[in-house]
Amino acid sequence: MAAPLVTLLTDFGTADGYAGALKGVLLSICPEARIVDLTHEVPPGDVRAGAFALACAARTFPPATIHIAVVDPGVGTERRGLLVEAAGAAFVGPDNGLLSLAARAPRRIRSLDRPQWFRHPVSRTFHGRDVFAPVAARLANGTPAHELGTEVREMMEICPEAPRRSADGSLEGEVMHVDRFGNLITNVSEHDLAALLDRSGATAGSVDERLAVEIAGRTAFLLPTYGAAPGGSLLALIGSAGLLEVAVNGGAAHATLGASVGTRVRVHREVG
Amino acid sequence: MAAPLVTLLTDFGTADGYAGALKGVLLSICPEARIVDLTHEVPPGDVRAGAFALACAARTFPPATIHIAVVDPGVGTERRGLLVEAAGAAFVGPDNGLLSLAARAPRRIRSLDRPQWFRHPVSRTFHGRDVFAPVAARLANGTPAHELGTEVREMMEICPEAPRRSADGSLEGEVMHVDRFGNLITNVSEHDLAALLDRSGATAGSVDERLAVEIAGRTAFLLPTYGAAPGGSLLALIGSAGLLEVAVNGGAAHATLGASVGTRVRVHREVG
Amino acid sequence: MAAPLVTLLTDFGTADGYAGALKGVLLSICPEARIVDLTHEVPPGDVRAGAFALACAARTFPPATIHIAVVDPGVGTERRGLLVEAAGAAFVGPDNGLLSLAARAPRRIRSLDRPQWFRHPVSRTFHGRDVFAPVAARLANGTPAHELGTEVREMMEICPEAPRRSADGSLEGEVMHVDRFGNLITNVSEHDLAALLDRSGATAGSVDERLAVEIAGRTAFLLPTYGAAPGGSLLALIGSAGLLEVAVNGGAAHATLGASVGTRVRVHREVG
Repeated sequence: MAAPLVTLLTDFGTADGYAGALKGVLLSICPEARIVDLTHEVPPGDVRAGAFALACAARTFPPATIHIAVVDPGVGTERRGLLVEAAGAAFVGPDNGLLSLAARAPRRIRSLDRPQWFRHPVSRTFHGRDVFAPVAARLANGTPAHELGTEVREMMEICPEAPRRSADGSLEGEVMHVDRFGNLITNVSEHDLAALLDRSGATAGSVDERLAVEIAGRTAFLLPTYGAAPGGSLLALIGSAGLLEVAVNGGAAHATLGASVGTRVRVHREVG
Repeated sequence: MAAPLVTLLTDFGTADGYAGALKGVLLSICPEARIVDLTHEVPPGDVRAGAFALACAARTFPPATIHIAVVDPGVGTERRGLLVEAAGAAFVGPDNGLLSLAARAPRRIRSLDRPQWFRHPVSRTFHGRDVFAPVAARLANGTPAHELGTEVREMMEICPEAPRRSADGSLEGEVMHVDRFGNLITNVSEHDLAALLDRSGATAGSVDERLAVEIAGRTAFLLPTYGAAPGGSLLALIGSAGLLEVAVNGGAAHATLGASVGTRVRVHREVG
Repeated sequence: MAAPLVTLLTDFGTADGYAGALKGVLLSICPEARIVDLTHEVPPGDVRAGAFALACAARTFPPATIHIAVVDPGVGTERRGLLVEAAGAAFVGPDNGLLSLAARAPRRIRSLDRPQWFRHPVSRTFHGRDVFAPVAARLANGTPAHELGTEVREMMEICPEAPRRSADGSLEGEVMHVDRFGNLITNVSEHDLAALLDRSGATAGSVDERLAVEIAGRTAFLLPTYGAAPGGSLLALIGSAGLLEVAVNGGAAHATLGASVGTRVRVHREVG
């Protein structure tokens, strides 16, 4: 059997030694664990950005991967810890929505309510080290999930709002995430765009020429890739997560447009 | 026998390829080494911050882990390189205090005075690649420590000043470290606080209600966790390293207070 | 046989999950791959900085290492993907010069023109995940390089300009890279310096005393190491890549001098 894969996603940064402490605890309990850093650079306390990054990365991993995610501003309060099994993988972290985009239903949710699996004394400010890493390491060691927590029915969800269809047939959405390159990733999926075109009688093959995205008083046209627009100019495209993205070729759209998470977009067929 | 674990802590960042070069040297000499990044983001040249992070992370690792630490503004001068064995682990790095918080006595200290173990030619600006990584890799390969360097009696120490007891019974300490979240970690330990309470006749069970921390003209009260304070307000707590910490729930205490490393704190029982 | 080593160098940062997605794809196709992060912090789109860092790190790795490098502003355009074998290692990435400093001739260059090895559907914005990682993983699994792409004769080169010899015998070069510490790394090699001294009749042993570097209106003298200059003062030295470097002991030369990539340097023997 291959050594268990355990990924880490946190907002700890690395400079303080907190991320290192997580790794040490994991390896002390499960010496053969293969640790893979997803990131420790989620903006501090930004549960939504962490959830988005986790969903983006986790879907590419092999079955049976264990993902530990810790963006946890409510650490030490009544919020629960969770172990969620979904899509053949396991997710361990706080019940604050962080796991909800990656670990979608159908899934099995367990509350981490059994202190015998924790590291003691349990710090009230560092459940990553004292709760989530130890539980994940036990799972990696082969302890069955049902021994690690009690099954529960619900968990906190982050539900990115679905784009809405307007009376004139256009789609109204918003920016969900700004990435490192300043690209604006929206909640409009390629399926939403296909539906918009179907309804207007266009064919899939002509998608590229026909769609315009209004954002921050500007219009971006859908192109196949960054380099299809002149250097420095605005464009829209289907990004690597299958979502509509607004970008500037060789630049940073969030700066060009003064846009950020929550900025509205309107997508419509360009007439004429 | 499990593959040897080798951790890395540096101030190199990663973008220049220096951290990558360390890893290549390690794997060239000891191909089965399992490399674990603690951090490469220690502030450049900040030996004290590196020492703090190393101590925080190293204590969680399994026995026989080898820790390489390189924050080394004096590289190429007469400062020695060290291999220190302590608490079942080995620490390799410059003799400038960086190892001293993690590798506490009892310990065995060796000076890296045997060029046959180095990578040649030895750059005068990059002992991480040419001295510390090669020596650590030899240790990982099973070369006995006594062949790698000559035992010496002393090493440079960073001694965080102990908090002082004032005539009125209060404790005077200072901020030792500011973490990524802006939390102010002091040199006052939970044991210091317990002693303060014992002396005043309080019981351990009532610790939470009774202690006040004066810092930068403000007062923070000891609470069990960040979320026990209203959002945006100041609090004190026992952090994950067992040290008194001043924080702002959902904010950054260093910014709120204008505090930094060296800022004084005074801890006392709140009367009335 | 040891598990295959695969390194990663990108400009993705880590916070968006893109770097994590690369790792997941790699491990899904080649579960035993040992992934080593070189960096994900190349400045966005800075092909030259990425090429420099890759060359610095890759040379230290053991034979048969596979290096994936993705700094790819032209993703989705006609630029090719490459698999280059050089110096016993393999390099996978875009044909934009990124690989050219590390994978020097003699080398075998292949164009990644065989979609059967890609991850489908291939995103037009994320060839790291859908082209380079899958091809590298197949190589790690033992698929012969000649099955992965068609051999071609040329690839894009970044040719750092060689320093020029002036009529007065001095060398004219320029800053190629500014590192994290603000050190200015030039295109003047230690061999160039040795030649400069030979020609003027000096001996290798007297190199340290004799060379002056003019930069930004200031003069830096060649010293053996940072600490050989007084704190805060300017110096020149041979850096860890064997290149002339201008530095400030305990400071940041790029800030002190207002210098950056492209700033000219003139090196000459100091007379008198």
